[in-house]
Amino acid sequence: CFSQDIDHILETQSALAVDLGGTNLRVAIISMKGGIVKKFCQPNPKNYEARMELILKMCTDAAIQAVDLNCRILGVGVSTGGRVNPQEGVIIDSTKLIKEWSGIDIRTPISDALHLPVWVDNDGNCAALAERKFGHGRGVEDFVTIITGTGMQTAALGPTTRHRRGIIQHGELIHGSTFCAAELGHITVSLDGPECKCGSRGCVEAFASGLALQHEAKKLHDADLLITEEVPLKGEETITAAHLISAAQHGNPKAEAVLRTAGTALGVAVVNILHTVNPSLVVLSGVLASSYQAPVQQVISQRALCSVGNVKVLTSDLQEPALLGAASMVLDFATRRMN
Amino acid sequence: CFSQDIDHILETQSALAVDLGGTNLRVAIISMKGGIVKKFCQPNPKNYEARMELILKMCTDAAIQAVDLNCRILGVGVSTGGRVNPQEGVIIDSTKLIKEWSGIDIRTPISDALHLPVWVDNDGNCAALAERKFGHGRGVEDFVTIITGTGMQTAALGPTTRHRRGIIQHGELIHGSTFCAAELGHITVSLDGPECKCGSRGCVEAFASGLALQHEAKKLHDADLLITEEVPLKGEETITAAHLISAAQHGNPKAEAVLRTAGTALGVAVVNILHTVNPSLVVLSGVLASSYQAPVQQVISQRALCSVGNVKVLTSDLQEPALLGAASMVLDFATRRMN
Ligand SMILES: [Ca+2]
Ligand SMILES: [Ca+2]
Ligand SMILES: [Zn+2]
Ligand SMILES: [Zn+2]
Repeated sequence: CFSQDIDHILETQSALAVDLGGTNLRVAIISMKGGIVKKFCQPNPKNYEARMELILKMCTDAAIQAVDLNCRILGVGVSTGGRVNPQEGVIIDSTKLIKEWSGIDIRTPISDALHLPVWVDNDGNCAALAERKFGHGRGVEDFVTIITGTGMQTAALGPTTRHRRGIIQHGELIHGSTFCAAELGHITVSLDGPECKCGSRGCVEAFASGLALQHEAKKLHDADLLITEEVPLKGEETITAAHLISAAQHGNPKAEAVLRTAGTALGVAVVNILHTVNPSLVVLSGVLASSYQAPVQQVISQRALCSVGNVKVLTSDLQEPALLGAASMVLDFATRRMN
Repeated sequence: CFSQDIDHILETQSALAVDLGGTNLRVAIISMKGGIVKKFCQPNPKNYEARMELILKMCTDAAIQAVDLNCRILGVGVSTGGRVNPQEGVIIDSTKLIKEWSGIDIRTPISDALHLPVWVDNDGNCAALAERKFGHGRGVEDFVTIITGTGMQTAALGPTTRHRRGIIQHGELIHGSTFCAAELGHITVSLDGPECKCGSRGCVEAFASGLALQHEAKKLHDADLLITEEVPLKGEETITAAHLISAAQHGNPKAEAVLRTAGTALGVAVVNILHTVNPSLVVLSGVLASSYQAPVQQVISQRALCSVGNVKVLTSDLQEPALLGAASMVLDFATRRMN
């Protein structure tokens, strides 16, 4: 009985986090302090049945491992691409990268199989929740996250709202009337800019996402203006945004111009966000974050109203924003219950 | 005693509303149902002392009249140009149109003089509050108002936020971290558009405000391309946006082109708002509202993501949004206390 108590005390309060991306399906055991105790990764199956089966298997396996690792799993948090109704635990519709993944109740099957509470939100919102709990967003009441990877995911956390009873509400995700807020990748920064895959034109994503930069890199490569001794192409390697960035770093003026325009576009989008919700912090994350921090700061100082210009722009320190954010939905709930 | 009770029953629960604009200072007695019982108007004095003195005099006079009109004044609501901290009742800084009006505590002197509670917010936010209580915003949880008059005032009401305790919060004003949210007039819609008075360029206000249209109208007039028999210039009349609209209505292609660009710019700004906070309704008000409704709808159908495209765009029916919104801060508080 004594040893049981000790065991209980030594247990690590933890969450299972699931990250459903275009390529991979990942499950992790994450501790209350944000430590990744164990991580599992499989290719994300191409159809609903196989995917759901694999999610349940990976979660069950992880839960069993958690016992061995003396981790007490308090619940499951799911991060997925697409548009999510977090109240219902339902994926409303998905990105093109995840097939057969619209109108899916993901909460019920996981909850039934694991007998645990389940939270769901999209990858952009999860990244923001990760910043709030483990990153630059700690203690910040309203901030925006922008992830520039292949595409662009974004989220906004609770601007100051004046509550009916005079109480001030802070630091909660803005989901919007149709769970489609913070589609900041499709903020238009140019009336007649490049075409965007959403059907509009001049969206910031069409200037500044990894895919947009790759597109420009390929155009330069086709014109024989990209690859040099300093920016070599290794074997069968595909041209990517990394080649463009490397070329710009080595003084290629065409590559510099593309990155300058992309940085300006992202900066203008951020200024538009400042003028709409006036957050106190913008966190840039994803592989392109460090390239964009300086241009975004510069555009803010040139274009924002003084009254919003004191916003901080930081680059994320988090390694696994989607998994950490998914876990935080579980861990925050557990913390509230314990207090 | 009986007659006193009758008197009390017949009393109209009312608010004093103050509207501080660039030109006029207005005070009104407004009933619970939004009726304007009596309205007083004076030129807005050019310095702080004269202005504050006149505000207190007009409010005191109105309160005396209210007794005769059997209106019970429950409090004072103030709408002012500029940036406001509504919690403190302080004007942080003002538009250039109202001099000596920064860092002003307006609540304390009015409250001291009238022995009534006082609420303060800026004109854009007051217009949104008016829509919520008396206009198209009734029962709508999250909407945005855009007033296109000489300049452009805007406000956003409570997007859906997920509350710490799982409660859903709706329908409250977004004030932002430095009370500077909803500066939607300075949303950039063109990386290198016309210069804006804020110091940036390509802001929607620089395309679509009354001043921007007047500027374009004057340019056409100087090139002798505006005034015709159908669009006459009466005597010493100044050229305004109205001449431009009239010329476009009579088929002047240059005037049509200016209005088309302005409508597209406003539409793109609205799409950016949809992608940032995803409201369910946009209310256009001000003199240009009816001219802009169709182009804004069209740009939404062309450029917005399908998931936000079902937003409603309506033209305001309210005659006095600033006064009604100022009154609503008082009336809503009184209603809450009575329930
Ligand atoms: Ca998002
Ligand atoms: Ca405003
Ligand atoms: Zn787009
Ligand atoms: Zn501007």
